Amino acid sequence: MKYIIIGAVAGGASTAARIRRLDETAEIIMIEKGDYVSYANCGLPYYIGDVIQDRNKLFIQDAASFKKRFNIEVKVKTEAIEIHPAEKKVSLLDLDTQQTYTESYDKLVLSTGAVPIKPPIPGIHSENVFTLRNVHDTDLVKSVIEHKEVKHATVVGGGFIGIEMMENLTHLGIKTRLIERAPQVLTFLDEDMAQMAKSEMEANGVTVDVNNGLSAIINNADGSKTILLENGTTFKTDLVILSIGVQPNHFLAKAAGLEIGEKGGVLVDEFMQTSNTDIYAVGDVIEFHHPVCKASYPIYLAGPANKQGRICANNIVNGNTKKFKGSVSTTIVKVFGKTIGATGSNSRMLTHHNIKHITSVTHGSSNAGYYPGATQMIIKIAFNPKTGVLLGAQVMGDKGVDKRIDVFSIYVQNKQIVEDLMEFEQAYAPPFSSAKDPVNMAGFVANNIMDKVMPIFNPIDALQIGETEYLLDVRTPKEYEEGTIPNALNIELDELRNQLDQLPKNQTIYIFCQVGLRGYLASRILMQNGFDVKNLSGGYKYWKNTYGLKLETLETAL
Amino acid sequence: MKYIIIGAVAGGASTAARIRRLDETAEIIMIEKGDYVSYANCGLPYYIGDVIQDRNKLFIQDAASFKKRFNIEVKVKTEAIEIHPAEKKVSLLDLDTQQTYTESYDKLVLSTGAVPIKPPIPGIHSENVFTLRNVHDTDLVKSVIEHKEVKHATVVGGGFIGIEMMENLTHLGIKTRLIERAPQVLTFLDEDMAQMAKSEMEANGVTVDVNNGLSAIINNADGSKTILLENGTTFKTDLVILSIGVQPNHFLAKAAGLEIGEKGGVLVDEFMQTSNTDIYAVGDVIEFHHPVCKASYPIYLAGPANKQGRICANNIVNGNTKKFKGSVSTTIVKVFGKTIGATGSNSRMLTHHNIKHITSVTHGSSNAGYYPGATQMIIKIAFNPKTGVLLGAQVMGDKGVDKRIDVFSIYVQNKQIVEDLMEFEQAYAPPFSSAKDPVNMAGFVANNIMDKVMPIFNPIDALQIGETEYLLDVRTPKEYEEGTIPNALNIELDELRNQLDQLPKNQTIYIFCQVGLRGYLASRILMQNGFDVKNLSGGYKYWKNTYGLKLETLETAL
Repeated sequence: MKYIIIGAVAGGASTAARIRRLDETAEIIMIEKGDYVSYANCGLPYYIGDVIQDRNKLFIQDAASFKKRFNIEVKVKTEAIEIHPAEKKVSLLDLDTQQTYTESYDKLVLSTGAVPIKPPIPGIHSENVFTLRNVHDTDLVKSVIEHKEVKHATVVGGGFIGIEMMENLTHLGIKTRLIERAPQVLTFLDEDMAQMAKSEMEANGVTVDVNNGLSAIINNADGSKTILLENGTTFKTDLVILSIGVQPNHFLAKAAGLEIGEKGGVLVDEFMQTSNTDIYAVGDVIEFHHPVCKASYPIYLAGPANKQGRICANNIVNGNTKKFKGSVSTTIVKVFGKTIGATGSNSRMLTHHNIKHITSVTHGSSNAGYYPGATQMIIKIAFNPKTGVLLGAQVMGDKGVDKRIDVFSIYVQNKQIVEDLMEFEQAYAPPFSSAKDPVNMAGFVANNIMDKVMPIFNPIDALQIGETEYLLDVRTPKEYEEGTIPNALNIELDELRNQLDQLPKNQTIYIFCQVGLRGYLASRILMQNGFDVKNLSGGYKYWKNTYGLKLETLETAL
Repeated sequence: MKYIIIGAVAGGASTAARIRRLDETAEIIMIEKGDYVSYANCGLPYYIGDVIQDRNKLFIQDAASFKKRFNIEVKVKTEAIEIHPAEKKVSLLDLDTQQTYTESYDKLVLSTGAVPIKPPIPGIHSENVFTLRNVHDTDLVKSVIEHKEVKHATVVGGGFIGIEMMENLTHLGIKTRLIERAPQVLTFLDEDMAQMAKSEMEANGVTVDVNNGLSAIINNADGSKTILLENGTTFKTDLVILSIGVQPNHFLAKAAGLEIGEKGGVLVDEFMQTSNTDIYAVGDVIEFHHPVCKASYPIYLAGPANKQGRICANNIVNGNTKKFKGSVSTTIVKVFGKTIGATGSNSRMLTHHNIKHITSVTHGSSNAGYYPGATQMIIKIAFNPKTGVLLGAQVMGDKGVDKRIDVFSIYVQNKQIVEDLMEFEQAYAPPFSSAKDPVNMAGFVANNIMDKVMPIFNPIDALQIGETEYLLDVRTPKEYEEGTIPNALNIELDELRNQLDQLPKNQTIYIFCQVGLRGYLASRILMQNGFDVKNLSGGYKYWKNTYGLKLETLETAL
C-alpha cells in the first residue's frame, strides 16, 4: 500500500507515524510545502517573546529523522498543486527546482491546515505587517524585533494567536495595542468573561480597542506606520501582527471535487473519510459537527488534530473501525497573570443555536483558603434547564484554572448532568484543592437552581433593576459602604431573621452579596418565610467586574 | 422537627448547615466534645510546620457564628455519652461542669469521626509522644517544638498524616525519621510507586524504615527518648508522632445497637441511614462499599465527608431521595518537591480482592516539552483486561499531578474504559499541557495493550529475566553504556530495521527503552517481521527507580 499525506505538522505527522506503526511494509510519503515538519506551532508566539529561548526546541522531528525512525519519506519545500482522484494521483511542485511531477497513492490524507485571513485593507501588504502561522513567519517577526527599533506594536484580532502575541510583545517591553472588530476579545468566551480578560490586559499596560476594526495601514516616511481604525482613531506603530482569523486551507480539496461544508472545511465522516473513499482529512482543514451545539464547525485545535491523526491511520490501515466523536472546543489561554479556559458552548453560541440554557456563576478557591497561595477563580457554567445536562463552562483565575477546565471538559464530553459535578471526587489536600472543590461548588449551586431551592437573576438584569424593584445587599454595612449596586438597600445576613418585618411581601426581593453564598443563605431564610426572592448569580464581585464596569464606562462617557 | 448532630467538624457541620438551609424552622443542635467546631483539620500538620502561620486561619466558624448565621445551637466541650434509640434521646455530659443531661431528637446524625490507634507498646503514653487528630493535639505538639529543644523527631506510620508531619517537621529543620511496619509507606500506592516516594523522602534527608515496627519508647534521663524498633535497631529522638492509623469512632453507635461493619465502621445505606431509621451517620465513622473493589471500607477523606453531609441533610429533611454512590478513594499528598496522588484501587488491592487487571506505566510531561518548566510525571493505571474499564490510577511528579488525578478520578467514578482516556479533550496551550496529554498517552498505551498491538512485561518480570532470555535495549549506545538492565543487549531503534537478521525468532524478545515509547516502535517493527516481543512497561527509567533500586540494595547487602 502507498499512502500520501499532504501536510507534515500535527494531524499529518500523527497520521503518518501511526500508519507506520500499524503497517511496517507500507510506502508512506509526506508532502510539506514549508521547510519544516512536525514543529511546535503552538510555541511560536512564546519563541518570539523569548519565553522559549532556544529555537531548536520548536522542532520535534525533521525529514531525516522521519526517514530513519519511521521509514517515512518526507518531501519538504514541495507543494501539492492538484489531486486527480480518478487516477489516484497527486501533482507535486518542487519549490526549489520548480519542477512538477506526479505521485500515485492508494490512500491520500489531507492535513493542509488553515490559512490566515487577510482582508483587502489598504496597506495590509506593507513591510513589517505579518501574519503568524509557521516558522517562516516567526523568523520574520523575530528578525524585525531584533534588528529594528520596535517601540510600539499593533495586534489585529483578539483570538488565541492575537492574545498570545500581545502578551509576548508586551513581555519584550514593546508597548502593544490590541484591535478587535467584534464587541469583545476572545470570542470563545461570553462577553462578561471577555470583559474581565480585557481588564487584565489593560492592567498590564495594553491598550485594547473592541468594536473597532482596522481601516488602513499608512506607511510613514520614518519607517513607522499610522493605523487608522474604523471609528476614525489614528495612532502610530512600528509592527503589525495580523491575527484576524483563519480559514480551512481547502483549495486543493475543492478543486478535486471533495465536498466542502458551510464553514469552508472539508467534510469528513466520523472515520475522517472525505466524500472520496480514498481520501481522508484531518486537522484544521476539516469541519465537523460540534457535540454541544450540533452545527458543523472547523476545529482549530492541536489536541483534536493529533487524535484525528491516530483515528485516521487506524481506519486507513484496518478499515473504518475507529470513530471521531467531535471536539467540545476545550481551550485555554494565558493572559499575563490570568488563565482563561472554556469548554463546550458558551451562552452566546447556545443562544445563537436556539439552545435553551441557564447560566450560573460561582467563585472558588484554587486550594484550601487557609493554605498559602490560595487565589479565587470565577466559574461560569451553562446547563439545560430541564435535563441539567452541562453544556459549557468558562473559568478564569490565577491558578488551578487548567485543572477545572479539564474536569468540566470531561463532563461536557460525556453529556453529564450538573448533579454529577456535585459528586466529582477531587484529589483533596490543602495545597491542591478544598474539601469542596470549585467544581463541586458550581454543581451545588446549579443543583440548587434546578431544584428551585434558589432562584437566581443575572448581572445584566441587575442593570435594569430600577427604583421600583427591591434590591437587597446582605453584606456587612462596611462592605455596603465601600460600594454597592445602585438603588440597593442593606440588611446584613446575620441580622436578617430579626428584620423580616421590614421586607415587602408583595414584590420580588432581589438579593445579592459578595460572591453569592450569603445571598443564597439569605434566599433560603426569606423563601421559607414566604418572600419571593432571587439571588444575584456570581454576586457583587462578578457584577462589578463585568456590567458594573460597563455602567461606569457609560457614566464616564455621559 | 428537632435534629441533633454529634460531631461538629466536616461531615457534621456540613449536615447541620444544609439542614438549616432546607428547614428554617427546625431546631438544630450540634454536640462537640472538643473546644472547636468546623476547623480545618487537614491544615493541622501545615500549621505545625509554620507553612500556615496564623492559627486563626484554621477556624472557619465558631459556636457563636453558627448561632448567628444558621441559628444552630452548638454545645462545645460536651460529650455524647449514650444514645437511647427507643426513646429517641441522647445523654450528654458537660465536660466543664461534669453534669449529665438528656436531649430528645426527631432525627440524630452521627459524625463522630475516627480515633487514632494507640497499640499497647511500652512507653507509648510517655511525655512528648503525641497523636495528631485535633486542635488540642496540634497545640501540644506546637508547644513542645517551640519551648523544648527538639533536634530529632520520629514519626511512626507512613500514611497521610505521618507523611505530612514528616515533611513539616523537616521543614522546621528537625531531623526526622519515619517508621513504617508495613513493607512500604503510603499504602494507597503500589509498592513500586511507594518506593519512589521513599526515595524522595530520603533525598530530603529523612531516614525511612519500612518493614520495621515500633517496639518500645524508652525515656532517657536527659529528657530524650530511645526508640527500639522490631528489628533491634535503636536510636535517640526528642519527639514522637504516632500516626499508626485510625479506626471509626463507633463506640456510641455500637452501644446503641446500631449495625457495625467488618472494618469497624457504622453501616449506612446509600441514603446515609444507619440500621435505625431515625439515626444517620456521615464521615470517618461509617464504612461503605468501595465502587471499584466492592468490599466495604471506612472512608477517611474530607471531600466525601462533606458530600455525605449534604446528602444526609437532604434525606433527613425531604425523605430519602439523594444517594451517596461511594468514594473511589481519590487522594493526594505532597512529599517535598513531589506530588503523589491516586484514585480507584491499586494493583495490590485488586489482587487482594481477586479482580483481574493489567497495569500499564507511562511517563508524560506536565506541559509542552518546549515550554519552560516542563517536568515529567509517572502514571500507573490498572484496567480490566476484558472490558478495558479503568480500575485505578497512581500519578507522581513535580507538577500537574493533581490535575491528572482529578481527571482519572472522574473516569474511575464513571466506570469508563481506557479508550475514553484517548479521547479526553484536555485544555491545551503550551504552559498547561501537550497536544497529547499524559492522560491521552496512558490511554493510547492501554489501548495498544488491549488491541494486542503491543504486548508488555513489567519491571518485576525484568528482574527474573536471566541469561537464557533475550533482553534488548533499543536506546542509543550512549544510553546503554550509562546503565542498563543486567544481561541486556543493545541495538538502537533507528538501526533495528537493518539488523533484523541478528535477532532470534525462536524465543521472546524482551524489549525496553527509556520510558517505553521507542520500545513500542521497536515492538511494532519486530512484530510485523514475525518476531515474538514484549515491551517493558514504563521503560528503563521506571525499572531503575523501582525494582532496579531494590536489586541494587540487594547487591549491596550481599
